[in-house]
Amino acid sequence: MASNRGLAYVKPGVVELRDIAFPELALGDRKCHHGVILKIVSTNICGSDQHMVRGRTTAPEGLILGHEITGEVLEKGRDVEYLEVGDLVSVPFNIACGRCRNCKEQQTGICTNVNEARPGAAYGYVDMGGWIGGQAEYVMVPYADFNLLKFPDKDQALTKIRDLTLLSDILPTGYHGAVTAGVKPGAVVYVAGAGPVGLACAASCHLLGAAVVIVGDLIPERLAQARSFGCETVDLRKDASLADQIAQIVGVPEVDCTVDCVGFEARGHGHSHSVEQPATVLNAAMEVTRAGGGIGIPGLYVTGDPGGVDDNAKIGNLSIRIGLGWAKSHHFTTGQCPVMKYNRNLMQAILYDKIKIADAVNVQVISLEDGPSGYQDFDKGAAKKYVIDPHGIVAA
Amino acid sequence: MASNRGLAYVKPGVVELRDIAFPELALGDRKCHHGVILKIVSTNICGSDQHMVRGRTTAPEGLILGHEITGEVLEKGRDVEYLEVGDLVSVPFNIACGRCRNCKEQQTGICTNVNEARPGAAYGYVDMGGWIGGQAEYVMVPYADFNLLKFPDKDQALTKIRDLTLLSDILPTGYHGAVTAGVKPGAVVYVAGAGPVGLACAASCHLLGAAVVIVGDLIPERLAQARSFGCETVDLRKDASLADQIAQIVGVPEVDCTVDCVGFEARGHGHSHSVEQPATVLNAAMEVTRAGGGIGIPGLYVTGDPGGVDDNAKIGNLSIRIGLGWAKSHHFTTGQCPVMKYNRNLMQAILYDKIKIADAVNVQVISLEDGPSGYQDFDKGAAKKYVIDPHGIVAA
Amino acid sequence: MASNRGLAYVKPGVVELRDIAFPELALGDRKCHHGVILKIVSTNICGSDQHMVRGRTTAPEGLILGHEITGEVLEKGRDVEYLEVGDLVSVPFNIACGRCRNCKEQQTGICTNVNEARPGAAYGYVDMGGWIGGQAEYVMVPYADFNLLKFPDKDQALTKIRDLTLLSDILPTGYHGAVTAGVKPGAVVYVAGAGPVGLACAASCHLLGAAVVIVGDLIPERLAQARSFGCETVDLRKDASLADQIAQIVGVPEVDCTVDCVGFEARGHGHSHSVEQPATVLNAAMEVTRAGGGIGIPGLYVTGDPGGVDDNAKIGNLSIRIGLGWAKSHHFTTGQCPVMKYNRNLMQAILYDKIKIADAVNVQVISLEDGPSGYQDFDKGAAKKYVIDPHGIVAA
Amino acid sequence: MASNRGLAYVKPGVVELRDIAFPELALGDRKCHHGVILKIVSTNICGSDQHMVRGRTTAPEGLILGHEITGEVLEKGRDVEYLEVGDLVSVPFNIACGRCRNCKEQQTGICTNVNEARPGAAYGYVDMGGWIGGQAEYVMVPYADFNLLKFPDKDQALTKIRDLTLLSDILPTGYHGAVTAGVKPGAVVYVAGAGPVGLACAASCHLLGAAVVIVGDLIPERLAQARSFGCETVDLRKDASLADQIAQIVGVPEVDCTVDCVGFEARGHGHSHSVEQPATVLNAAMEVTRAGGGIGIPGLYVTGDPGGVDDNAKIGNLSIRIGLGWAKSHHFTTGQCPVMKYNRNLMQAILYDKIKIADAVNVQVISLEDGPSGYQDFDKGAAKKYVIDPHGIVAA
Repeated sequence: MASNRGLAYVKPGVVELRDIAFPELALGDRKCHHGVILKIVSTNICGSDQHMVRGRTTAPEGLILGHEITGEVLEKGRDVEYLEVGDLVSVPFNIACGRCRNCKEQQTGICTNVNEARPGAAYGYVDMGGWIGGQAEYVMVPYADFNLLKFPDKDQALTKIRDLTLLSDILPTGYHGAVTAGVKPGAVVYVAGAGPVGLACAASCHLLGAAVVIVGDLIPERLAQARSFGCETVDLRKDASLADQIAQIVGVPEVDCTVDCVGFEARGHGHSHSVEQPATVLNAAMEVTRAGGGIGIPGLYVTGDPGGVDDNAKIGNLSIRIGLGWAKSHHFTTGQCPVMKYNRNLMQAILYDKIKIADAVNVQVISLEDGPSGYQDFDKGAAKKYVIDPHGIVAA
Repeated sequence: MASNRGLAYVKPGVVELRDIAFPELALGDRKCHHGVILKIVSTNICGSDQHMVRGRTTAPEGLILGHEITGEVLEKGRDVEYLEVGDLVSVPFNIACGRCRNCKEQQTGICTNVNEARPGAAYGYVDMGGWIGGQAEYVMVPYADFNLLKFPDKDQALTKIRDLTLLSDILPTGYHGAVTAGVKPGAVVYVAGAGPVGLACAASCHLLGAAVVIVGDLIPERLAQARSFGCETVDLRKDASLADQIAQIVGVPEVDCTVDCVGFEARGHGHSHSVEQPATVLNAAMEVTRAGGGIGIPGLYVTGDPGGVDDNAKIGNLSIRIGLGWAKSHHFTTGQCPVMKYNRNLMQAILYDKIKIADAVNVQVISLEDGPSGYQDFDKGAAKKYVIDPHGIVAA
Repeated sequence: MASNRGLAYVKPGVVELRDIAFPELALGDRKCHHGVILKIVSTNICGSDQHMVRGRTTAPEGLILGHEITGEVLEKGRDVEYLEVGDLVSVPFNIACGRCRNCKEQQTGICTNVNEARPGAAYGYVDMGGWIGGQAEYVMVPYADFNLLKFPDKDQALTKIRDLTLLSDILPTGYHGAVTAGVKPGAVVYVAGAGPVGLACAASCHLLGAAVVIVGDLIPERLAQARSFGCETVDLRKDASLADQIAQIVGVPEVDCTVDCVGFEARGHGHSHSVEQPATVLNAAMEVTRAGGGIGIPGLYVTGDPGGVDDNAKIGNLSIRIGLGWAKSHHFTTGQCPVMKYNRNLMQAILYDKIKIADAVNVQVISLEDGPSGYQDFDKGAAKKYVIDPHGIVAA
Repeated sequence: MASNRGLAYVKPGVVELRDIAFPELALGDRKCHHGVILKIVSTNICGSDQHMVRGRTTAPEGLILGHEITGEVLEKGRDVEYLEVGDLVSVPFNIACGRCRNCKEQQTGICTNVNEARPGAAYGYVDMGGWIGGQAEYVMVPYADFNLLKFPDKDQALTKIRDLTLLSDILPTGYHGAVTAGVKPGAVVYVAGAGPVGLACAASCHLLGAAVVIVGDLIPERLAQARSFGCETVDLRKDASLADQIAQIVGVPEVDCTVDCVGFEARGHGHSHSVEQPATVLNAAMEVTRAGGGIGIPGLYVTGDPGGVDDNAKIGNLSIRIGLGWAKSHHFTTGQCPVMKYNRNLMQAILYDKIKIADAVNVQVISLEDGPSGYQDFDKGAAKKYVIDPHGIVAA
């Protein structure tokens, strides 16, 4: 049992499966008696992993990837009270202590005790505290009583594991984008991006009662995926403006709310669709969102981007038409989703069949060995969400 | 065109169709240049009308009933700016001026300018300002620019008129109950009462993303109606306690939120189901709602009830186990639904097929002539929502 | 150091100082490695302690009283990470695990892991989990990282300890009542009760920007105390109705919000002021609160009261004029204040001199030996808040 | 009575008092039977007027300035029901119909019926619907029942008119900035800008219970004014960074919330303080606001600025370090303040002496004739709020 394997970032474009150390209840010198070691049941490749793998961050060689983790408790620290060995649990991607001001205020995405560099931490992510990633066979989760969401019925949960695996990140993240944009029953929503987070956001909009969910992207297969569960779509490669395409769908060139599920690696619309224009989505959002509307921004914007299109972009400084947003009284919510704020309710929605999230994002289960190729296919724009099954439990 | 007919309350148990005056842009001496006269397209019988018809209020002989109105603008006052003759509109049952403090704060259920006796007014209702009811061929709506919700596409709207007619009261009312109880994605909800408001509330809970909606009633046909659109049900005539029945459905004897869609004419549960016990629903709500949960109370409680079970009940003073609610940190929201706060969004949900409310409440379209028998059938517990079609437009 | 003394409830009307065990990091068999032992710097007598001492609960003989605790960390368990020996801390009266659903949602008043009987626990209180009270020299606080609020500068804090001691309960409790009633800048508020919680609520209303704070009570000295910091007052022994007295102050017989800081041991108004009428305050609140207004209920209502005025009252079942509240669209919030939601912000308000809460509630510092007489004086209606100073640190 | 005079914008830097037409109950061909004509009691010069007067907008020659108006009803249209000739009223600067979706949702800053070009209108402002300004003797206010706030006691109000005159814009605007930034009791706030809106915001923060209010500006007199009512201040001309200066005040280099009361004509900090850098304030806000904090942006950003520092700035497109804001999970609220949402409550706060806003912003009463010189002095950075008194009523 003391062996372990995990996917490592090697250099831009290269991910490789390596033998790694079996987890300890510690992070370096920091003891984690409050932690557990999980046998990983499923662990998903995330679009934000791609930022690292594409070389758009300062991730070091050898970083073990993976922050979307579901697993079984294999061993627990002495200070864990409310979990038992064998429990099946979902791991929020944000690591949180449960004891700082932010955690107490449900802001677990910016915990101040788990990352010396800045508020907020995650497994297997650059600048996010150094916690070891979970695209592996085993992983350690600190502050387990606080962080973990236990599924109430393990057997039932295993039958829905393709859906429940998405509780660790993209479902809450998409949902957070929708909630902070103000999506509610009857709303007309534009979701920018039909990657997994965009599709999860679109499915969340439906769950929240939205009247119309319009998804925009540059990749036809992803748009087809969005249409498969009742979304309207906009092909952003077309010359017709986004506003015009929206008008064709709902009769007016604007929506009630917009969610940016793309982030800083955005490309232009129309003719410019092959060119990176990092503020495209934000500026489009202000153009098409009605006065008084909200803009949720779960898509990642960074403080440092070695591959940025210019010196400003390299430090996350973008050219934003704030004058337009101001004239329309827009409000904007940014940042990592605090997963814990939503995951229990979304679990219930899955368990009672109110959302079919695995189908919406087109889950594709792969082995750990197939992780590297999963990264490559995903990077090419496959309309799939890759779920790694390190022990063959999901497949079973 | 100067003729009109409407349903009048005559005495307990008796409603009759009478010739009545054609509406004027006035209420007695009060001129309503801001009003319109509507040709009524649909007008529904409401459970709260039954309180009057059963003699449980001080409604006077001859009161023209009806506060759930949808119609076409036939004539408009000189101060109406944003409506045109021919527009198809939904009328919120609460009459509101759009100019007082409460209206400005979206509290249109307690407008202070439309009822000399107390805040809040309605069409065709005792103590609600004396405005003439709309179970008729024509009706006058004051402050029309403010009050009316215009359907954007008349032809489309007519094809969905069985659903849209429910925007005037029961759909927003049920929805308000759900929202104020805290229903959101993943919630487990108990809805007390499977009359039209209860069913509309249950359908609203689904629209809001609830994981499980449990509806309780004493009438099997109404429970069957609730099951027809995915609700779980509890038969309150059974000896098994409500908590036990809930536990059989969701594994624990409590819910996240409860909505009281019954009000003061509640009967007991189990053995006591044939006896009026006006606080039954409120006390049951506190029993089965989890600590920290919310209780929405759209069901009507009154300040005067000639038929109350005792002297306290006659003045709306009920024996409530507030100690239990307090121990569980419950919160309670009472009062008329401010329809305008919700009707536009709910219209969108109907127009885009996100809610099938006519089916959920089992709309039965009847003629004005059949109004009196509709009242009788409804009073017997028919699992139907009676929609009167005075001009044969709905049927067409 | 292994000695300890604390105030014990003996029988109705009798409190006595006893030698008690020095605290352990445990509650019976339950180990509390997450806990700390505090040297108590200040510990206040609370109105809710009086319910026990008056014999209005089922508190057992020998129960060590006290849930309003401020202290210095003397010893810490192995799982405590973010506190150091010597830290000066405020203890929220609600004991909370920081790991259950309710704690994660800031509902620390109804933690599900600290009381086997029901959600919610407190130190030294009947039915609240059996945790030993803190009107003593030393006390154990479990889940210390989560529960405790550390004062950032110990020396500065000691100079304001008469104010900061009120963070453990009555200041947040009064504030919670105000917030849940909807108090905000410009509001006209009625605060029922001028005991310490009522006065803390009134001071909180000022902090929240209320335009007028009207405090009602039966005891002239308490009303004088309320006037000392800018409140208007109403003497409830007078024959003039509450509404009339309010009208004399603000010109209309109603307020925007009401806070019930009395609870179930309420007495009647006017002629009835010597008679216990447990629903008086709630019914008065509905009478004087404007339509659409909110009613906050931090005053305690219980599920069992051996001394209740009748069989209904003995089980917390009161005769409430809910019909009136409903007609006015009131909303009600009950329950224990979740102290942690507010204490950090209120600490800041104290440290920066935005609220003078010790003066407002008239803090009187006494020794542990004087605890029993403090209980007696407080029970007689002294317009004072008794703060016990077990080690003479406050006095220093 | 048919004469009128008003302040006209002539060309950059030039304002002149002209004879103008007496108001009609109309705007061109648009009849305003819902309007009133006011005899203006006070009308203030606003910082946003300066944008026009400095030539930073496309305001046409002859535009009559003034959107901060308090007056007495002189004449009323036939559709006005709830105002009487002689009433003293405050005019929200945003013109709103009270009948559109946005007005019904309290978003009166973006009314869709009062400006053909875009949502939102104001008196005397470029691109804001063409409504005639109120730096004059008389003005017409449309939709008077909806728009106007009547002072309950005219005589009392006249004694506080120097304060109440600020209800038309800057007090609610500053307050809105504070509320949307999340200011509440105990908060540490940074207010960028010590012009009248910044000072009004700072005073609002105090009203809202903030623990520390730190005001930054480049003009020493304005900072002195901020200190006069209890604010801390930061001199932005200094080389010490804003974060460092904040740390000197509160011990840490960050605040809970920031309010941008400067807008697009911002200049740099430190060495750059003589250079316009339109995104300075926004970028500084993200730097100093704690993770999870809010940023309110009542300061004006425009869609077109002929005097912008570069082509991007000319269309309101600024270089914003959104990557930093995202990393800190900031949220941003922009746009015109919907005055009506707040003015009644703020009026109460003034009438009951909870805020001394005239002193805070240093009201200077001047005659209409002195209007042009008032503009000049204000432009030079006078730490004053100029209140024009066209009829000598304020002075009386």
